[in-house]
Amino acid sequence: MKVLWNDQIVDRGEVKIDMEDRGYQYGDGLYEVIRVYNGKLYMKEEHLERLRLGAEKIKLVLPFTKETLSQKLEELVAVEEITEGKLYFQITRGIDSPRNHVLPDPLNVTGVLTANVIPYDRPVEKQRKGIGVGIVPDTRWLHCDIKSLSLLGNVMALEHARSRGFEDAVQIRDGKVTEASAANFWMVKDGTMYTHPDGNLILPGITKKKLVELAGKLSIPLKEEAFDKEELFSADECFISGSLIEVVPVVKIEDHVVGSGQPGGITQKLHNEYVAEVERICN
Amino acid sequence: MKVLWNDQIVDRGEVKIDMEDRGYQYGDGLYEVIRVYNGKLYMKEEHLERLRLGAEKIKLVLPFTKETLSQKLEELVAVEEITEGKLYFQITRGIDSPRNHVLPDPLNVTGVLTANVIPYDRPVEKQRKGIGVGIVPDTRWLHCDIKSLSLLGNVMALEHARSRGFEDAVQIRDGKVTEASAANFWMVKDGTMYTHPDGNLILPGITKKKLVELAGKLSIPLKEEAFDKEELFSADECFISGSLIEVVPVVKIEDHVVGSGQPGGITQKLHNEYVAEVERICN
Repeated sequence: MKVLWNDQIVDRGEVKIDMEDRGYQYGDGLYEVIRVYNGKLYMKEEHLERLRLGAEKIKLVLPFTKETLSQKLEELVAVEEITEGKLYFQITRGIDSPRNHVLPDPLNVTGVLTANVIPYDRPVEKQRKGIGVGIVPDTRWLHCDIKSLSLLGNVMALEHARSRGFEDAVQIRDGKVTEASAANFWMVKDGTMYTHPDGNLILPGITKKKLVELAGKLSIPLKEEAFDKEELFSADECFISGSLIEVVPVVKIEDHVVGSGQPGGITQKLHNEYVAEVERICN
Repeated sequence: MKVLWNDQIVDRGEVKIDMEDRGYQYGDGLYEVIRVYNGKLYMKEEHLERLRLGAEKIKLVLPFTKETLSQKLEELVAVEEITEGKLYFQITRGIDSPRNHVLPDPLNVTGVLTANVIPYDRPVEKQRKGIGVGIVPDTRWLHCDIKSLSLLGNVMALEHARSRGFEDAVQIRDGKVTEASAANFWMVKDGTMYTHPDGNLILPGITKKKLVELAGKLSIPLKEEAFDKEELFSADECFISGSLIEVVPVVKIEDHVVGSGQPGGITQKLHNEYVAEVERICN
């Protein structure tokens, strides 16, 4: 397998991450996951723009321009001959020795880029049948809008739900539903879609953004408003969204069956439109 | 420089961290910093015990017994011939490919240990003159008792304060002082010491624990109680504590001068006792 390591495409085994890379010692870096459809990087510009915004927020000087990074990622996908896949990449603040909490002078460090792409197909079964989620307190930091490598909070939220037999978590902070463990969370009530507004408490999902656009096109009323547990349990439909999973219905929350226990009509309509949009863009 | 890499002491240049080490992609691991005085690892058992507890909390199976780890760390310090130094080590959940938020089966991954030790001397000037701190909202996750590698919150708290000209941060959550950016925070008022109680909002400092013991010995009244900003500004003395810095007076908070603007009497008495204790134990 070939991977991208800074500006070089190399054999995976050649990559040597330094023990004092700040990504390794501080989770100090950013990442993105881009879905590859038909050999094309779906919504690439939006992912690169979110990366740029995150870098600004944590004062990380990106080692490549958006154009160079974009070109390198495209090159990797071509070399690996991936048509349906997931492209992961991360950029850390670079190697800083001796270890020090203080941000290093950007003149003295260079961000480290690593990327790989592997085959990936739609999780068709989950999309068709839906999943069950467990309620977990949202104990993550207050900058969930930054797609950072300090991910232990997300990992433990998922583990918390999985250890009780659920496939994902629905996180609740101060009484309000925020997100799944690594996906945006939605509900439908009386024909209107609801999801948490962007801000510091959730990741501004690229798929979320696309779904907002498609809901407009389909004339489905949509409110970006936080909702509480009681409202959650009164939902007619629920689903989660993300670049890899697209739209996955949530048919059970703890012991509670959502709606009919089957994927909801609006959820399916929206997912069909999402798939159609992918085909339009990546044909 | 020799470092410890899993169970081997090797040249630093030989260490090759995998790009899919969960420490690198998720900040999924734990660390400790032990102060070396006179060639001895100060309060080693307490550090190893905190590591064990943290591992339990995040379900990380440590790759070595406490005894083996202890022996390997001692060996590294001996090989590097460090008498006054700081020993850093971290253990990640190991290499898991392909990347997946789900915790890998501990039977299929092995934690990765890296450690190095470098010379370090008391920050005498800071200890003598004190520092100024800036108030920063505590936006970290709600498991600050876990000394994890997902440290971007701490890093950004420090940067937040430093960018405004302060040497460290004093973090406030829900109106209460929690910690500095990577040290416990204390105040003295009318002869009584105050610091935030252990729990999920602060790191249970090894130095904190020792200071509680020494305060008892010196018959200084001490309350592990959270205090608010108003109480903070009414303090006669403030200081921060940590394994490397020991005790460092805080003489300024934002524009406000603490007490006389000089390190306080109780702070100094306590620090002297701390140094005497180190000498008793590491002679």
